[in-house]
Amino acid sequence: MVVLDDEIAKELGVGALDRVLLKRDEREIVAIVNIGRRLPLDAIAVYDEVAKVLDVREGEYVEVKPVESPKSSGYIKDKIRGTRLRYNEVLEIIKDIVEGRLSDVEIAALVTTLHHQGMSLDEAYYFAKAMVETGERLDLGVKPVLDKHSLGGVPGDKTTILVVPIIASLGFYIPKTSSRAITSPAGTADRVEALAPVDLDIEEMKKVVLKTGGCMVWGGALHLAPADDIIIRVEYPLSIDPFFTPSIMAKKYAVGATHVIIDIPTGRGAKVKTIEEARKIGRDLIEVGRRLGMILQCAVTYGEEPIGYAIGPNLEAREALKAIMGRGPTDLINKAVSLAGTLLEMVGKENGKYLAWESLRLGKAERKLREIIEAQGGDPKIKPEDIPIGDKKVVIRSQKKGRVLWINNAIIARIARIAGAPKDKGAGVRLYVKIGDHVKEGDPLFEIRAEVGYKLQAAEEIVETSIPINVGKLEEEMLITKIPVGTFEQRLFLIER
Amino acid sequence: MVVLDDEIAKELGVGALDRVLLKRDEREIVAIVNIGRRLPLDAIAVYDEVAKVLDVREGEYVEVKPVESPKSSGYIKDKIRGTRLRYNEVLEIIKDIVEGRLSDVEIAALVTTLHHQGMSLDEAYYFAKAMVETGERLDLGVKPVLDKHSLGGVPGDKTTILVVPIIASLGFYIPKTSSRAITSPAGTADRVEALAPVDLDIEEMKKVVLKTGGCMVWGGALHLAPADDIIIRVEYPLSIDPFFTPSIMAKKYAVGATHVIIDIPTGRGAKVKTIEEARKIGRDLIEVGRRLGMILQCAVTYGEEPIGYAIGPNLEAREALKAIMGRGPTDLINKAVSLAGTLLEMVGKENGKYLAWESLRLGKAERKLREIIEAQGGDPKIKPEDIPIGDKKVVIRSQKKGRVLWINNAIIARIARIAGAPKDKGAGVRLYVKIGDHVKEGDPLFEIRAEVGYKLQAAEEIVETSIPINVGKLEEEMLITKIPVGTFEQRLFLIER
Repeated sequence: MVVLDDEIAKELGVGALDRVLLKRDEREIVAIVNIGRRLPLDAIAVYDEVAKVLDVREGEYVEVKPVESPKSSGYIKDKIRGTRLRYNEVLEIIKDIVEGRLSDVEIAALVTTLHHQGMSLDEAYYFAKAMVETGERLDLGVKPVLDKHSLGGVPGDKTTILVVPIIASLGFYIPKTSSRAITSPAGTADRVEALAPVDLDIEEMKKVVLKTGGCMVWGGALHLAPADDIIIRVEYPLSIDPFFTPSIMAKKYAVGATHVIIDIPTGRGAKVKTIEEARKIGRDLIEVGRRLGMILQCAVTYGEEPIGYAIGPNLEAREALKAIMGRGPTDLINKAVSLAGTLLEMVGKENGKYLAWESLRLGKAERKLREIIEAQGGDPKIKPEDIPIGDKKVVIRSQKKGRVLWINNAIIARIARIAGAPKDKGAGVRLYVKIGDHVKEGDPLFEIRAEVGYKLQAAEEIVETSIPINVGKLEEEMLITKIPVGTFEQRLFLIER
Repeated sequence: MVVLDDEIAKELGVGALDRVLLKRDEREIVAIVNIGRRLPLDAIAVYDEVAKVLDVREGEYVEVKPVESPKSSGYIKDKIRGTRLRYNEVLEIIKDIVEGRLSDVEIAALVTTLHHQGMSLDEAYYFAKAMVETGERLDLGVKPVLDKHSLGGVPGDKTTILVVPIIASLGFYIPKTSSRAITSPAGTADRVEALAPVDLDIEEMKKVVLKTGGCMVWGGALHLAPADDIIIRVEYPLSIDPFFTPSIMAKKYAVGATHVIIDIPTGRGAKVKTIEEARKIGRDLIEVGRRLGMILQCAVTYGEEPIGYAIGPNLEAREALKAIMGRGPTDLINKAVSLAGTLLEMVGKENGKYLAWESLRLGKAERKLREIIEAQGGDPKIKPEDIPIGDKKVVIRSQKKGRVLWINNAIIARIARIAGAPKDKGAGVRLYVKIGDHVKEGDPLFEIRAEVGYKLQAAEEIVETSIPINVGKLEEEMLITKIPVGTFEQRLFLIER
């Protein structure tokens, strides 16, 4: 973006959101026009990145002339009118998104249109392919390459920290990239960061994987499918997610994955609510994966309550480390070996789940995790107690006797976030109970951990006006909720890729 | 918009397009975040308008804190999910658009969603009402107040310059506001500007109308329905127009109109292609007008070719002035008295068309036009020859004998624009023929006028690769066009309000 004075803009015949070509000697860049008032008449305001491309400093001259909209702008208009996009058109759109030639207005219109009209399988495949072709790629030079992805939405899901070492300990390659939290209390990258650095570049990542078989790094700085990051930036404030399928598949394709297990946590409190919905999503992912040359399986997993007991980056890292050392909660262990087992069977192993179990039981997975930690630059001797957690805490107790009927994932996640997660790495929630557990009046249900006093207080306040964990007799709890009248309802939207 | 360093943004827990509150002493403003890199860590970059609101200068401190999205952002998300908006929600959205609290992404998503889902009559009414309530209004303190609006799309339509003086000359009030050209060679405001200043403020406009009965001013600076201007800015690059009905009705409602004639030029080369389409548009306008307390009539007019012979601001002003002086082309005169006549009958006059004719024939309309010109600050004695037109010209001649089968409005408009219109006021096109005229080989079809040589050349080049005016025998011209293969087709989109 550049800012032109309105008089100059009129002179050039351009308006807001039109495009101009800036030229200085041999260097040039196309920028989108913003109109200012009372700028000096011969001045143009540019961002640093524009100045850098042009190699121009304050006081120097640049040539400015209007340019036609890029072709991709026309393809977006076509799409708005309902045409099917062809591959060359999709590639043009994605290229221009990456190179900043499309405005927020145009990207938002594309995203909104795809949300309303849906994206065909062809288009999803085209977008995934184009996203990969316009970014960096990891080429390990080996086969098969295994990978795992979770659709997310369930707090406390630290399964990846177990699955990656299990797979790598059995001699397979698994170059796992993860995101940081966007709307949740912790992303896998946030969790792993308590154990080892995750900000690796693609060469460092390759070295770690070729050495240990696995890695767990942050995907954000790798420039794999960079268009996706720009698209998410627009989807997020709109709480829509039409690029869901291509963006997941692009990230897997970009690391050269050949066999991928997709975890679809399903349940009222998860992103995917019903098994029917999970099936539909899974079918699309499998088909787009197939067209990209990947073999996929989708596992619908139980998503009605958090995985394990810990929620928040460091609390979860502690729990995952304990689990791989043999002291983990049943649901976490079971989920990890189920997913790892399926992956193993996809590449021809028999009794995959048993193999995964054995890797854990014999300490092979733990040794592999410590190898990966060391290769990524962390301390391979790290103990769970070494991971700092917030020293401010409050314990929430049951006000009645009964069974735990449900745990509200969204409220638990919100409490963890208000308490400081993911920014305050030691903040979060520790559950004492899971669904079905019997509790007496006064028994602890969960504790909130924070690093900062006022955040602990703010998180505690949420408990007073909501029901994070419901204890009672099922037959006496028929009223689920009331639809608020005339007030603005809190909305929760998850984008985790 | 403000620009924060990415480190600071992370610290505050805000991302791109999130909102922050800037505070300095008692002054505050909400701004949308843009992320920069390598900014000084304690610095924040703001636009002049933000600095002005805060009364802050370089080097001074402001308080910055994250704020929740405005309620209207949630209403837009609701709309994306398909809810029907209520009036208080629409008002909130429009307020926030006017006050800059919604981002381009959110406005684009709203516009795109309304394009795909359509806007109900209720919503159109709500948007029109909200647009007026958040802007300036003209209160003449008289009744009835007449008004006229054209949907546009036909080049050379200078009808307003005749209709306003005719109506005013018969003792009625007609406070006409017009737009400048957006995609066309001339808007009514551009045409009138050749006769008198059009940049009046609302008080000056009121004075002119109360004195002369009419006015013809530019609507852009009056802040009538200011939300509309912001919405158009987003619609335009997307070539969609879902706010069509409310934005027209808002502009009429804001000047206190009680009786409005809407001109719907219809034909293959116009914005509205078929009579069925015109009827549908008309019905919506009439109903939304009715809810706002206005009486509307819609006139479907012939839009297959330009109105009169002149296209371009000054060429058209000349033709309109000549016409009101008794030497006008038949189609222009007929259109003007038809529309004026309908308006007159709407307020109870009998034989409206005859009355309009008489006003023209007796010179009453001309005297009224000159009164209005004088009241707006122009020269009341202006003669057609006083209006300067481009001195560069080229005449395009027919290459065969036959009848004029069709005139391509879009190509004629494009030629006029490439020749310099509307910026070069003397540039444009003058037709020598209209549909149905007989021509011989070598007869002139039209001339292009320009103020600048290279623009004349560029306009002439278009003629070589297109058929602006087709001459022949109908039975030998069955091929209309070919659908281009694999190339990017020129798109033409008209927004004229």
